[in-house]
Amino acid sequence: MAIPGFCFRRLIYPGYNRIIVRQNVFVQNVNFKNFVRSFSNGEAPEYDLVVLGGGSGGLAAAKEASGLGAKVAVLDFVKPTPIGTKWGLGGTCVNVGCIPKKLMHQAALLGEAIHDAQAYGWQLEPQAIKNDWASLRQAVQNHIKSVNWVTRVELRDKKVEYINGHGIFKDPRTVHTVIKQGERTLTAKYFIIAVGGRPRYPNIPGAVEYGITSDDIFSLEKEPGKTLVVGAGYIGLECAGFLNGLGYDATVMVRSVVLREFDQQMAQIITASMQEKGVKFLFKCLPQSIEKLPDDKLLVKWKNACGEEFSDTFDTVLFAIGRKALTRELHLDKAGVQVVGEGEKIDVSDEQTNVPHIFAVGDVLHKKPELTPVAIHAGKLLARRLFGGATDTMDYQNVATTVFSPLEYGCVGLSEEIALNKYGPDEIEVYHAYYKPTEFFVPQRSIAHCYLKVIALRNGDQKVLGLHFIGPHAGEVIQGFAAAIKCHLTVPALMSTVGIHPTVAEEFTRINITKRSGKDPNPQSCCS
Amino acid sequence: MAIPGFCFRRLIYPGYNRIIVRQNVFVQNVNFKNFVRSFSNGEAPEYDLVVLGGGSGGLAAAKEASGLGAKVAVLDFVKPTPIGTKWGLGGTCVNVGCIPKKLMHQAALLGEAIHDAQAYGWQLEPQAIKNDWASLRQAVQNHIKSVNWVTRVELRDKKVEYINGHGIFKDPRTVHTVIKQGERTLTAKYFIIAVGGRPRYPNIPGAVEYGITSDDIFSLEKEPGKTLVVGAGYIGLECAGFLNGLGYDATVMVRSVVLREFDQQMAQIITASMQEKGVKFLFKCLPQSIEKLPDDKLLVKWKNACGEEFSDTFDTVLFAIGRKALTRELHLDKAGVQVVGEGEKIDVSDEQTNVPHIFAVGDVLHKKPELTPVAIHAGKLLARRLFGGATDTMDYQNVATTVFSPLEYGCVGLSEEIALNKYGPDEIEVYHAYYKPTEFFVPQRSIAHCYLKVIALRNGDQKVLGLHFIGPHAGEVIQGFAAAIKCHLTVPALMSTVGIHPTVAEEFTRINITKRSGKDPNPQSCCS
Repeated sequence: MAIPGFCFRRLIYPGYNRIIVRQNVFVQNVNFKNFVRSFSNGEAPEYDLVVLGGGSGGLAAAKEASGLGAKVAVLDFVKPTPIGTKWGLGGTCVNVGCIPKKLMHQAALLGEAIHDAQAYGWQLEPQAIKNDWASLRQAVQNHIKSVNWVTRVELRDKKVEYINGHGIFKDPRTVHTVIKQGERTLTAKYFIIAVGGRPRYPNIPGAVEYGITSDDIFSLEKEPGKTLVVGAGYIGLECAGFLNGLGYDATVMVRSVVLREFDQQMAQIITASMQEKGVKFLFKCLPQSIEKLPDDKLLVKWKNACGEEFSDTFDTVLFAIGRKALTRELHLDKAGVQVVGEGEKIDVSDEQTNVPHIFAVGDVLHKKPELTPVAIHAGKLLARRLFGGATDTMDYQNVATTVFSPLEYGCVGLSEEIALNKYGPDEIEVYHAYYKPTEFFVPQRSIAHCYLKVIALRNGDQKVLGLHFIGPHAGEVIQGFAAAIKCHLTVPALMSTVGIHPTVAEEFTRINITKRSGKDPNPQSCCS
Repeated sequence: MAIPGFCFRRLIYPGYNRIIVRQNVFVQNVNFKNFVRSFSNGEAPEYDLVVLGGGSGGLAAAKEASGLGAKVAVLDFVKPTPIGTKWGLGGTCVNVGCIPKKLMHQAALLGEAIHDAQAYGWQLEPQAIKNDWASLRQAVQNHIKSVNWVTRVELRDKKVEYINGHGIFKDPRTVHTVIKQGERTLTAKYFIIAVGGRPRYPNIPGAVEYGITSDDIFSLEKEPGKTLVVGAGYIGLECAGFLNGLGYDATVMVRSVVLREFDQQMAQIITASMQEKGVKFLFKCLPQSIEKLPDDKLLVKWKNACGEEFSDTFDTVLFAIGRKALTRELHLDKAGVQVVGEGEKIDVSDEQTNVPHIFAVGDVLHKKPELTPVAIHAGKLLARRLFGGATDTMDYQNVATTVFSPLEYGCVGLSEEIALNKYGPDEIEVYHAYYKPTEFFVPQRSIAHCYLKVIALRNGDQKVLGLHFIGPHAGEVIQGFAAAIKCHLTVPALMSTVGIHPTVAEEFTRINITKRSGKDPNPQSCCS
């Protein structure tokens, strides 16, 4: 920690039990010098910051802290999945999340592009063109390996020590790990818990033995074949979407609702869009067991809401029923860090846990969006507060996100149900429209599910509370509008924004039909 | 015009020479009833509104006016090009502009997608796959015909009378036209001039005989083959870009600079990107003549800035050297409407010409963006002011646009040069970054030209003045940010917007390097 003229090695390191700092105090209010000087016995800690977990949030915080002069170590260790999948530095996003997911999504989109291409004059026979899983998997894995490598090099460049070991707390100031070279004990002034989460398995026979999760699918040796995806959150939908797009038979088993945490009208449209593309859905069903048959197929038995039993065989069963935070493995009790409820996640105030010098970012956080950019943003801001004298805190509101389903769904702000619930129907105006992407006409692609809506306050300046968009490039479309919402976007401002023609994003500037009016939200003419 | 209890037929229609209204008075300040009652002699006008030109702006105004109860006629007539190309209702955008351009751009992108697909595991041989011009042209023309039809039906539904004739002013209240059925004379209370523009030809031997323009390319019978595009505005670049993408040899001849009206750093990057994709550029050259050779090839002679002569043969020569407003054909002198300078465009104040009851929208306007959504927006707002009692006027500032080049360039707000010139270098901060689209890695596409910049005020709240983005889906990316700029986007607001990962649009939320700092704007790691 490079505070000029201030050498921590000379400071006395106290026992943790003598530090009493009010819980939930915001770290920017902690006077750093006094905090350090309050140590009255023992050695100074070896590190200014030890980060547990080398994923997006942890690495972002570590690099930012190091750039601000802190001495930083990151511990990262990946426990293999039940079928033995493991990966390198970088966390979920790089290895088994956003990146491989987006690449497989892109592969599926390219399959659609091949079909479109014929209509646009390209001389090919789309029906004859198949995707080779081994080639795709290898391409995806090669890219991941290159990102692992770049991440490693960047840590070295930024003077962050990388330790390939699983850290566990010995006490609130000490983390212990076992690495190739032997055991290591690290002491630090601050800790950031950024170990993220891992997929859950259901408690049914055969699940762990024969099932896989998103941790496995992107590096699966054999092609997935006919696949049952259990779970209809965004991970389940995305996996089923790209598998279907790659030519595999894909079925989604839904326990209760699709995309529970999203606007439910949009979730239904996404479901219909996926069904139209060939994904099957089993609604209100719960898996009961998986058995391996002599021919290596997996026999899955399930029950519907009436208790009726069904079964079918699949080549692959992928569980996407939720994720659990990896807090239990950290021995948080030794550090005094509390976790919340069954999920054992960590509740924080401005990323600070109940132990003032221990922080947390990313997917381990209770009731925060589990999204890479959220973890990165929070990690960076935290590092700047800890080591840069900054005061900016993370705003977890109005975070945009996109489901790559493969007709994409992008949204920011409130869902319609939450807006109605929060403000009441009389105070909410919902504008909506179906639209026709120009590019869809020539290949006669379905436009049935190209839909958007704007949720706004009905009175006052008609502030926009939520934007929802289903269509191509939804992620690219919604990002700028997320910035606009940061700037207090209103309906008049949106309507006075001139469109870029022909794009799909311009449809937001053309909205003029409210749900309340009961008017037909079907497309206007395209260019006048 | 359905104002309840107010029948215009009973009103007396005056000679135009007796109307004296202050020039440039805003129409919303004109009391409509008094204006009409001031007519003291003759017949009431036949129409509330006659629109000259059935393109985006004219049709938007006509439909809006009709929806507000006005009796409206639209005259539209397309004079064939020198080689005989003609088209239907809908104007430039639908027939020979945005729509066919975007479809041909999409065809070119699909060619790139076919190459990418192989890297993503699709079993095809991209080199063997060619585009068939006749199929593509037919697909594009079929779509245009369907839009023509829908446009026609919509006019009927909205009770706008469509007259397929070229209108000329006989006097300020009267337009004359010749149609199949004979002559027609139309009188109206208001006129909107929305005749748009057509491409210019250079005054060199062979230009008109052998050259074509964007009016012809999208319906060209024979495949374009080796093509010289003269002109490096956005139309020239887009045509060269899609022709190259479709597999044709394409050369752009540049008189002075590429994309004169755009940020010049971005223009240079676009040029470099097109060169990398195979488009050739002849800088500082002017064509001298075109001759047809016995084998039907076109021999083009040109000179460079030093007066040196060069020549080459091409299959197609496409002029994209600018467009001229179609005002001369209207006999505006008979109406007393003034035009400005050599371009003979119409200067307006809130779309009102110097003759108070004659308005203009779209590409005929002097010093206004020649863009479809601008014309539509202005037309709609004008109709609402004329017939709906509205007061909102068109804001021609901060209109976003995109060059589909084919690595797209989207921008909104000020260019760097204009910002520096307007505010001075000390007051301007330019943030910039190169970035790597996730999807580009697997097929090893060039990332050399993926670049963005944010131009902001350096002081105060660091208001964002301009956003510039080169990369895939630039139109989709920039639209939302245009809304944000409408809402006074600032650098802190942009930086506090959480990204959507992995998208290219999120790069705007990651900007942190200023040009002033001299730091390397090359990519950070992808996910932390």
